[in-house]
Amino acid sequence: MTSLPSDPNLRDLATPPACTADFCLIPIGTSSGASVSKEIAQVQRLLKMSGLNYSLHSAGTTLEGSWDDVMRIIGQCHSMLHANGVLRIQSDIRIGTRTDKSQTFADKVRAVEDLLKSDSHDA
Amino acid sequence: MTSLPSDPNLRDLATPPACTADFCLIPIGTSSGASVSKEIAQVQRLLKMSGLNYSLHSAGTTLEGSWDDVMRIIGQCHSMLHANGVLRIQSDIRIGTRTDKSQTFADKVRAVEDLLKSDSHDA
Amino acid sequence: MTSLPSDPNLRDLATPPACTADFCLIPIGTSSGASVSKEIAQVQRLLKMSGLNYSLHSAGTTLEGSWDDVMRIIGQCHSMLHANGVLRIQSDIRIGTRTDKSQTFADKVRAVEDLLKSDSHDA
Amino acid sequence: MTSLPSDPNLRDLATPPACTADFCLIPIGTSSGASVSKEIAQVQRLLKMSGLNYSLHSAGTTLEGSWDDVMRIIGQCHSMLHANGVLRIQSDIRIGTRTDKSQTFADKVRAVEDLLKSDSHDA
Repeated sequence: MTSLPSDPNLRDLATPPACTADFCLIPIGTSSGASVSKEIAQVQRLLKMSGLNYSLHSAGTTLEGSWDDVMRIIGQCHSMLHANGVLRIQSDIRIGTRTDKSQTFADKVRAVEDLLKSDSHDA
Repeated sequence: MTSLPSDPNLRDLATPPACTADFCLIPIGTSSGASVSKEIAQVQRLLKMSGLNYSLHSAGTTLEGSWDDVMRIIGQCHSMLHANGVLRIQSDIRIGTRTDKSQTFADKVRAVEDLLKSDSHDA
Repeated sequence: MTSLPSDPNLRDLATPPACTADFCLIPIGTSSGASVSKEIAQVQRLLKMSGLNYSLHSAGTTLEGSWDDVMRIIGQCHSMLHANGVLRIQSDIRIGTRTDKSQTFADKVRAVEDLLKSDSHDA
Repeated sequence: MTSLPSDPNLRDLATPPACTADFCLIPIGTSSGASVSKEIAQVQRLLKMSGLNYSLHSAGTTLEGSWDDVMRIIGQCHSMLHANGVLRIQSDIRIGTRTDKSQTFADKVRAVEDLLKSDSHDA
């Protein structure tokens, strides 16, 4: 006997309070052919409005916040571009959560760079 | 003059009413080493409870629903596994939205298979 | 003292003999607008020619083989579509390798399904 | 009549001469639990040896080169970590190719930043 479908826990299960997400959004079927920089700039403006911590890089944008805030703003980026006439959008999102420690995306890069710096000292 | 940071539209911008998402969830730092099938089974049980349409395949799970419902359940999968002791989780999510037509993930596979079937008829 | 830049080991380091890769290929800037099923069908035909084990699913295609074979055929899919006039292509590839055991992608799905089956037996 | 399976073109179809790839490598089942910075530092050292243009960022590493060179070095990263005792590794790779123009990953970021800069000028 399993009562999974009516299990009350699903309703009570909160999404993670913090996450780091990195997304690469691809507009498909735009009128501007293969160039997507105009759409990416629109996304950056929307992210700026969100108040979340974010960083544009060479293959996407990293942002930090609660799971719900992060996912809502990415969804809003899709909606905004659709409203601007983009028929189809595909995003790849890498999202990480952890309970062992709190670490910003800047911390993560620094941890690796610190390890690499000690290479030169050893040399 | 642009008033983007205080633009009221962000609050009013709804996330997409429908999307297809495919996610591959990776538990990191589990006690069971390299095997993750136990965690993936737990995820499937949670998805079943959600009432959303989903399909487990060889490299992840595809699900359909509103942007908010889909993202909430993936976040709840992270939370559930954290509650079960997984310290760190990384998911890769491919998510697509479109305004030109409504198409289920089963429709998409069928569209390609139909094109391939005509190959044999031509032969 | 470390002589990494001239380390001869890089030349001798082989790529993995086996991997499971899942890729989702997105043609950008096609003449057919938002529909991509024609291009995906062309990809499936090329995969068939490759002799590798592969499976089309709701959010991409999974394939198995040596790292080099798998990556070469995905690259050839890009080249073929470019030759057919697609100006820009973006693929998301999830690729896994392991040394603890040999497991096909069908094995992985079965391992999870077996765990789920025992749910019903317990019920 | 179709001669696809024996089509000689597959052998002659070259992989793309240039691509931009972004990869996020996740070691699973390491002895160090949830921390992966040691492994990421090892990957950076290998990339340095490769001579390819690359950039570590908040959610992965972007690199440029021919399809074959880029994919070989990512595969070698997997092999190196396996040789160092990591049982299982999963990478997410975003890879793009285009025929309409040659553009480095730095160019892409600059194109977006230039569009954003004109925002302030308008203000």
